[in-house]
Amino acid sequence: MSLIEQKLRDLGLELPVAPPPVGFYVPVTRTGNLVITSGQLPFVGREIAFAGKLGADLHEAEGRDAAQICILNALAQIKTIVGSLDKITRVIRLEGFVHSAPGFQNQPQVLNGASELLVQLFGEPGKHVRNAIGVAEMPLNAATQIALWVEVA
Amino acid sequence: MSLIEQKLRDLGLELPVAPPPVGFYVPVTRTGNLVITSGQLPFVGREIAFAGKLGADLHEAEGRDAAQICILNALAQIKTIVGSLDKITRVIRLEGFVHSAPGFQNQPQVLNGASELLVQLFGEPGKHVRNAIGVAEMPLNAATQIALWVEVA
Amino acid sequence: MSLIEQKLRDLGLELPVAPPPVGFYVPVTRTGNLVITSGQLPFVGREIAFAGKLGADLHEAEGRDAAQICILNALAQIKTIVGSLDKITRVIRLEGFVHSAPGFQNQPQVLNGASELLVQLFGEPGKHVRNAIGVAEMPLNAATQIALWVEVA
Repeated sequence: MSLIEQKLRDLGLELPVAPPPVGFYVPVTRTGNLVITSGQLPFVGREIAFAGKLGADLHEAEGRDAAQICILNALAQIKTIVGSLDKITRVIRLEGFVHSAPGFQNQPQVLNGASELLVQLFGEPGKHVRNAIGVAEMPLNAATQIALWVEVA
Repeated sequence: MSLIEQKLRDLGLELPVAPPPVGFYVPVTRTGNLVITSGQLPFVGREIAFAGKLGADLHEAEGRDAAQICILNALAQIKTIVGSLDKITRVIRLEGFVHSAPGFQNQPQVLNGASELLVQLFGEPGKHVRNAIGVAEMPLNAATQIALWVEVA
Repeated sequence: MSLIEQKLRDLGLELPVAPPPVGFYVPVTRTGNLVITSGQLPFVGREIAFAGKLGADLHEAEGRDAAQICILNALAQIKTIVGSLDKITRVIRLEGFVHSAPGFQNQPQVLNGASELLVQLFGEPGKHVRNAIGVAEMPLNAATQIALWVEVA
């Protein structure tokens, strides 16, 4: 088991099976030293674990959990093409889209559920740049969608 | 005529004249081996071919057509700086924004109109990662906006 | 003082102190020759200078000013890791998100406030690709959010 997966386990988390894409594309690709995922939704198995809009259907804490699940799925995707999460040398970027009801402005707090996990797992090299966007509509009514960029050796 | 343009013709499609930008920027750029377009709108000539929101003004099939036009325009832009579409070795990423009425959640199905064309044209190397985002407002009321990343030799 | 900062001064503008991130991430990173910022908000000091939605709370001219402030903040972030803005060889990409009231479709005009400044400062190498997206909700109610990509030698 990789060091990163051990750290996940120590946090009480587990790398899921990488979810299949919901359309005619691939879930992860590599260009040069960059590995980039498709926008990940908060799938647990075949179900969206958190559906609805932040600020109406979901509380901020649920949004944080949704964002964390997106990251677990993103890491699972990355593992499928690099073999081991220990090959990740740095996290580069997180593109975060938060399904937001009118007036909800705490997209950063929701996405911290994702960003904090990355720093817990990877330490200083887990720190990344981020976009935090509130969107009105989301595939499958998902609470969050996150694309992740990492650098590999 | 390039192989890719011949394939387009076989599909009954044609590479358009690359539309000019609607602002103070360029439609396509290259950095290293990556060629990245600006967000392309469904222009046919000087007109937006599909205006309005999916789920209110437009049916899903029209959204698919809009997404396909965005890709034709993106390929036309890419041709202006690489010379021939046959120089594209892989499609890397599609950033898809779908103009969505409240409750519309089929952004992936709409964007499949773009993704499927890329795979028809480029085969396995046409498969790409994708973000699928529903947005409430769009420049010129366009149905879709797509930025495309490809790798060249 | 760098050449670019002198040009800023000639335009009556000044590079601000780089604003701290509003979440658990970093404001700027480098991968290869690319330097990419987090989504920048129109902070002036610790205040969002332009809050609200274009087309309801704010006029287009205010949106342009907000977009320009985002670029000043992005350049300040970039300076913190490359040392001098004169090390920027090209501007690659601007990802622009405009906080938009229903029916507002002039996202490109708003973002031209950012794009024009980049071309004034960097000339031809300041020209970049761009996404122009209208979003319904924004962190801290900010009028605009912009992520900037530049190339360094």
